[in-house]
Amino acid sequence: MFEESAQDLTPISRLGEFGLIDHLTREFVVHNPDVLKGIGDDAAVYAINDKEVHVVTTDLLVEAVHFDLRYVPMKHLGYKAVVVNLSDIYAMNAKPFGITVSVAISSRFTVEALDEFYEGVQIACQHYDVDLLGGDTSSSRMGLLVSVTAIGKADKKDIVYRSGAQEHDLLCVSGDLGGAYAGLQVLEREKAVFLKNAALQPDLVGRDYVVGRQLKPEARADVIRMLREQGIKPTSMIDLSDGLASDLLHLTKLSKKGATFYEDKLPIDHETMLVAEDMKIPGLTMAMNGGEDYELLFTVALENYDKIKTMKGITIIGHMVEEEAGVHLITANGTMVPVKAQGWNHFKE
Amino acid sequence: MFEESAQDLTPISRLGEFGLIDHLTREFVVHNPDVLKGIGDDAAVYAINDKEVHVVTTDLLVEAVHFDLRYVPMKHLGYKAVVVNLSDIYAMNAKPFGITVSVAISSRFTVEALDEFYEGVQIACQHYDVDLLGGDTSSSRMGLLVSVTAIGKADKKDIVYRSGAQEHDLLCVSGDLGGAYAGLQVLEREKAVFLKNAALQPDLVGRDYVVGRQLKPEARADVIRMLREQGIKPTSMIDLSDGLASDLLHLTKLSKKGATFYEDKLPIDHETMLVAEDMKIPGLTMAMNGGEDYELLFTVALENYDKIKTMKGITIIGHMVEEEAGVHLITANGTMVPVKAQGWNHFKE
Repeated sequence: MFEESAQDLTPISRLGEFGLIDHLTREFVVHNPDVLKGIGDDAAVYAINDKEVHVVTTDLLVEAVHFDLRYVPMKHLGYKAVVVNLSDIYAMNAKPFGITVSVAISSRFTVEALDEFYEGVQIACQHYDVDLLGGDTSSSRMGLLVSVTAIGKADKKDIVYRSGAQEHDLLCVSGDLGGAYAGLQVLEREKAVFLKNAALQPDLVGRDYVVGRQLKPEARADVIRMLREQGIKPTSMIDLSDGLASDLLHLTKLSKKGATFYEDKLPIDHETMLVAEDMKIPGLTMAMNGGEDYELLFTVALENYDKIKTMKGITIIGHMVEEEAGVHLITANGTMVPVKAQGWNHFKE
Repeated sequence: MFEESAQDLTPISRLGEFGLIDHLTREFVVHNPDVLKGIGDDAAVYAINDKEVHVVTTDLLVEAVHFDLRYVPMKHLGYKAVVVNLSDIYAMNAKPFGITVSVAISSRFTVEALDEFYEGVQIACQHYDVDLLGGDTSSSRMGLLVSVTAIGKADKKDIVYRSGAQEHDLLCVSGDLGGAYAGLQVLEREKAVFLKNAALQPDLVGRDYVVGRQLKPEARADVIRMLREQGIKPTSMIDLSDGLASDLLHLTKLSKKGATFYEDKLPIDHETMLVAEDMKIPGLTMAMNGGEDYELLFTVALENYDKIKTMKGITIIGHMVEEEAGVHLITANGTMVPVKAQGWNHFKE
């Protein structure tokens, strides 16, 4: 006791977030036979009877790591903190029913600020028809930290894992890509302007869509419902929180498959492209590596092609191939580029 | 946007932790009929079928608020973070089966330090037969923050709420009181000595029990089992995390009853009394207001008196009275003292 932690050991940044989680949980083995899936998917899955399962997921949001309160209103933060967790539940093809919300806050926050946060939580609960089941509050030495856990339910036969993709399956994505990242760039630019000259008002004209993608994402309950109505069960699914490249690599790795997909198929909103131009960041980079879109990336059997291709808001971006073939993007000019995760590493120094 | 948060509003410290939770969640109404209990007990309760329920609870542990890593080993912290959540599950008379564990960590922590933390988590999982279902990791700007959620199950008929105590019920407590607080005082004293002169070794001789109560608490799974074996279902129950005074007031308030209990019945360990003497803090104060004992405070119908009085590690400390009579401690000299919560307020400035 009373020793300072040694400084000459392994820095966490060396492993990165996913490496760290793999490392820390490598010795954990699930013992309860009702637990069908522990760590390693969008959510854990456990049976509540022969036919039905519950799924559970949890996410941390940390001030100055995940959000900047200089441009994120507290109400939006409350809403988003719920949504990012519900997104993981939908990505299992399950329906969320309850959440817990814990907050640690420094003394600079007022009751009124927290009221706004909880107003956002409540609006999300109403919108997605989930109940607030509990939570905890604590002081913190610095800033705001939010921890949300979401629980959902599904029939066992309906659960979709990241690991189920088959060769020749169609690779699909909902909505559009890179918008949340584009919105973040706009907000960061306006913050920089503001910090130089507080008299200047932020210029967000014509950027409402991407700013909204960043500040008020939605979980794709509608996509899950639409697929079900069409009688389509995806073979694999993941939500896009870390960026297409990173999340696709999770899906292909766990499915033990490769994938080929096409730059000119990637759905990118017009506003995202405008921001890309402004910022001199390729639109492709935004789509591939921009996180926080909370769209669904999923695979379906080829036989669903006719149904899927007419489905509003769903884009077929490619198909699954054998594992040995690897994961490749075919660029607009026909070049085959191997995909590497460039997603965000919180622990990068 | 881009406004600094106003400083002239309501400071959180004005409401205190319980006031704050009540305030923030006052507008949340549970909509799902399967949710039998939302916020306001040790855990939320929701039906998974006609006969069975799940319960869920969550707790934050924040460095420099809940623990001091200068004397809390990471392994113990991991163990304790799990135990404090399981304690809430047992306090519902349920059995935990799964947890999620999230950590936010500053760059001063090494992979090796986190390994120790997760070793503690794993030992707790094995000891209490629960599975690690998931979690999240993030960087933090300052210190370590741990968020654990625990899920348990029970038959609906077995669930015990804080609110079920009846007049004339026996008021019982497991184990002994104030030990964890006494241990904390010893550790804080030794820290102060160490900070003055790093060459001095901590003197914990004869204080192993109370230091262990602070560093490595256990959840009382054994008490729950024992009561079940004896065919006793408590009428109300709460775990002692904030101190007897504070937690008893939760129980009496929700049960709409008063309570009378006796100083000379309070189980206080010999070591706790020695520390009380050393520190010139009355042993009674430690027992009443010292938190983190994670014992169970519960009520049983009077007809169970014969069984309860012979039950190892259970002490009958008083009985329930009508609400109007209030909550009173009868001191050793016969004085009747009304009980006020003096529990810890994280938000006190």
